[in-house]
Amino acid sequence: MAEKMAGADVDRLLGDLDGWSREGDQIVREFKFRDFVEAVGFMAQVGVLAERANHHPELRNVYSTVTIALSSHDAGGITQRDLDLAKEVNERVP
Amino acid sequence: MAEKMAGADVDRLLGDLDGWSREGDQIVREFKFRDFVEAVGFMAQVGVLAERANHHPELRNVYSTVTIALSSHDAGGITQRDLDLAKEVNERVP
Amino acid sequence: MAEKMAGADVDRLLGDLDGWSREGDQIVREFKFRDFVEAVGFMAQVGVLAERANHHPELRNVYSTVTIALSSHDAGGITQRDLDLAKEVNERVP
Amino acid sequence: MAEKMAGADVDRLLGDLDGWSREGDQIVREFKFRDFVEAVGFMAQVGVLAERANHHPELRNVYSTVTIALSSHDAGGITQRDLDLAKEVNERVP
Repeated sequence: MAEKMAGADVDRLLGDLDGWSREGDQIVREFKFRDFVEAVGFMAQVGVLAERANHHPELRNVYSTVTIALSSHDAGGITQRDLDLAKEVNERVP
Repeated sequence: MAEKMAGADVDRLLGDLDGWSREGDQIVREFKFRDFVEAVGFMAQVGVLAERANHHPELRNVYSTVTIALSSHDAGGITQRDLDLAKEVNERVP
Repeated sequence: MAEKMAGADVDRLLGDLDGWSREGDQIVREFKFRDFVEAVGFMAQVGVLAERANHHPELRNVYSTVTIALSSHDAGGITQRDLDLAKEVNERVP
Repeated sequence: MAEKMAGADVDRLLGDLDGWSREGDQIVREFKFRDFVEAVGFMAQVGVLAERANHHPELRNVYSTVTIALSSHDAGGITQRDLDLAKEVNERVP
């Protein structure tokens, strides 16, 4: 199991993760797309990545906006797994 | 443009819409699925239905749970369009 | 109903449609993606566009390759609807 | 790496896999859905399952029909991996 990271470590590592910020025990990013169709294509990819990693985000969609929050509930906070999935998700922004 | 409906009318019509309830200016339903994969399949269908209707929900996903909220922002409340899409969405529950 | 177009007209219009070619009564394009995940995101978008247009392609996927063929069966050949959907699909290539 | 199975072994094991048949070096099943939207939901699930298994099908979609062919190219034929994914796919038929 990945271990919960200290907030300062998370903040430092988020420096390399465009758009993500720490909000309590989660890291969060809002993604804006051209339209709803593009948002659907992004969410489809995120679904595949999440299941492959066996690590699932909280996902919210309103039209062309998708918000993703990541946390490691079993570790009680943010772990390397969250940062890894955030990095993979970022690579799917068109 | 569809017209905003009175709350009492919405409540009466929700009697035929399994699982939906009125929360302020929205109608909301939480869907529980077998697992994340099934939730992905449901969300993919909802995306297609929403774009076809040109009416888009607020959608939230946490693992095998999907929550959908519908409102007609241009009408300032709940309209027939919300009820129509809710009905279509309900037909996609496995 | 859209009318079947002459092959020469199709060929001329395909000049503006990157990657598509005429094969008998269809227009066809093969799309190559970075990986399977990206192909999934593309197919999800194509599904939404197709249903919105009420015009559905023949779609084939092998790993990171997606092949789309369009034809208007009711018109017995290629129509403006095929060209319109091909154009929309092209706009979804990352 | 999974080993290529003898045709007779495949045929015997397909007895437990509703709808699949052996065609040369592949196993194949055609799925019929209620409409295109349902087919989209199924394909979305298959995409997730395939990436999770790191084993990818040949997939073909025409409106409400989806055809899936599975083979293990690295083994030069049909292996247990194909049968395993076919079983998972079957569990996603609504």
